Amino acid sequence: MTRIVYINGDLVPEHEAKVSIFDRGFLFADAVYEVSAVLNGKLLENAGHIARLVRSCRELKLTLPVTPAQLEAIQQELIAVNQLKEGAVYLQLSRGNTGDREFEFPAAGVTPTLVLFTQARPVIDHPKALTGIKVVTLEDIRWRRRDIKVVGLLAPCLAKEYAHAQGADDAFLVEHGLITEGSACNAWIVTAQGTLVTRPLSNDILHGITRQSLLELAKRHDIPFEERAFSVEEAYDAREAFISSATTFIWPVVQIDGRAVGDGTPGPITRALRGIYVQMALRATA
Amino acid sequence: MTRIVYINGDLVPEHEAKVSIFDRGFLFADAVYEVSAVLNGKLLENAGHIARLVRSCRELKLTLPVTPAQLEAIQQELIAVNQLKEGAVYLQLSRGNTGDREFEFPAAGVTPTLVLFTQARPVIDHPKALTGIKVVTLEDIRWRRRDIKVVGLLAPCLAKEYAHAQGADDAFLVEHGLITEGSACNAWIVTAQGTLVTRPLSNDILHGITRQSLLELAKRHDIPFEERAFSVEEAYDAREAFISSATTFIWPVVQIDGRAVGDGTPGPITRALRGIYVQMALRATA
Repeated sequence: MTRIVYINGDLVPEHEAKVSIFDRGFLFADAVYEVSAVLNGKLLENAGHIARLVRSCRELKLTLPVTPAQLEAIQQELIAVNQLKEGAVYLQLSRGNTGDREFEFPAAGVTPTLVLFTQARPVIDHPKALTGIKVVTLEDIRWRRRDIKVVGLLAPCLAKEYAHAQGADDAFLVEHGLITEGSACNAWIVTAQGTLVTRPLSNDILHGITRQSLLELAKRHDIPFEERAFSVEEAYDAREAFISSATTFIWPVVQIDGRAVGDGTPGPITRALRGIYVQMALRATA
Repeated sequence: MTRIVYINGDLVPEHEAKVSIFDRGFLFADAVYEVSAVLNGKLLENAGHIARLVRSCRELKLTLPVTPAQLEAIQQELIAVNQLKEGAVYLQLSRGNTGDREFEFPAAGVTPTLVLFTQARPVIDHPKALTGIKVVTLEDIRWRRRDIKVVGLLAPCLAKEYAHAQGADDAFLVEHGLITEGSACNAWIVTAQGTLVTRPLSNDILHGITRQSLLELAKRHDIPFEERAFSVEEAYDAREAFISSATTFIWPVVQIDGRAVGDGTPGPITRALRGIYVQMALRATA
């Protein structure tokens, strides 16, 4: 089935969806994005994603050309027309096509480019959720505003490539000896005392929507947690480790730099927290 | 006159030049670029730009789909068809359209996207070359591989916006108290002793083609120079300052953070070096 995608007000077959070579998304990576998970044909935690998009736009003085409600209607229309049951809806907003290449932001009146498409993929029953993933640590070379969800993602792409070349699935990025996050996910460990640890919000990491929900669920279920930076050594010695993101929910990390995390299998707290999140997600999209 | 641009083997009117929304240049900023100046309808220092492009491609495992000679033939064809006398030819190579969005590099066989277009603009007689520019200093928040000329240019765009909001023309980016470079140019000062100073090559700055030529011209003309990092304070106290890039050549910097550089007018060494470079450029493109 040919996927139908959205571009600036139109629904078109995926092969026809094009932007100008002068679009600032193409020339300058002057664009933001969001990915919302879809379960049972319904959007999950979408209010959080749209709120973060609005924040990203504000930080970059980008104008969202539709209201949040209109945006959600577009997402839902794409889900319906593509009969998407499980997967994700990707949306990207660039500063638009100014007809030429100049670093300066264009004058008001240039229409931003809004693009959305669906991706069908297993979320609940993804094999990595059961087996866990292997990660390698790698210097974090990204820009310093990782709190803004921008499409300048070459460093994460290189990190994934590096991980794959090492026989791993993903990378934990490291700055000053401390883990910032994964290449496109937040990073967590469980200490010997059974405490969840994840890095506090700052410009150094993405403000994960799933991360925030997991902290709230941990609180509700009396799972102790701390928001603080942790070192590579602490991750090596952790009892458990995992990543979180909108479309993985939680994937256990069973190996870091070739060393087994705990006994090298997905840990009980990780599995319990994933279970709690999945329950919430299924209820929310029932 | 409608500009004719190049995209993947075709010459098309600028309004028809489009890339897929699934192009990795649009989704991930997974693309490199070069800008070569054009004088008298001829390319300037183009061998240096193409050599740097080849290096950028190697660093990112990007495959250039044409030979350097073919690339130059495309540049020349665009100059001819657009009757460009003075300005620049921009070229961008992205990792291409994989038909979907996955961080992983695509398997071999996905064709990179090669785009080129011309820009008509004054190079020799640009007003800023006479008046000089005002700059403001700003924390350098870019990624850590600034030696690779990638299109992830949102931080430089934000730096330019910041400079304009302050009533300045451009920004000097600062890391650990030391100036790295301008938002899209190399930064130079002239000390009280008359010595040119510019930052040495490393991953911290772009390896400017014009920067390298200026160092060679300085050597040939017995202008003393040092390649070393310099602080914001040293720039404040400098006798002269200037920027260099492919399409500005040299523009004097007459003000930094509201403080006059020297007497607040373009300095004699700056003007002399620009004159030497312009002479070389005119000879090379005669």
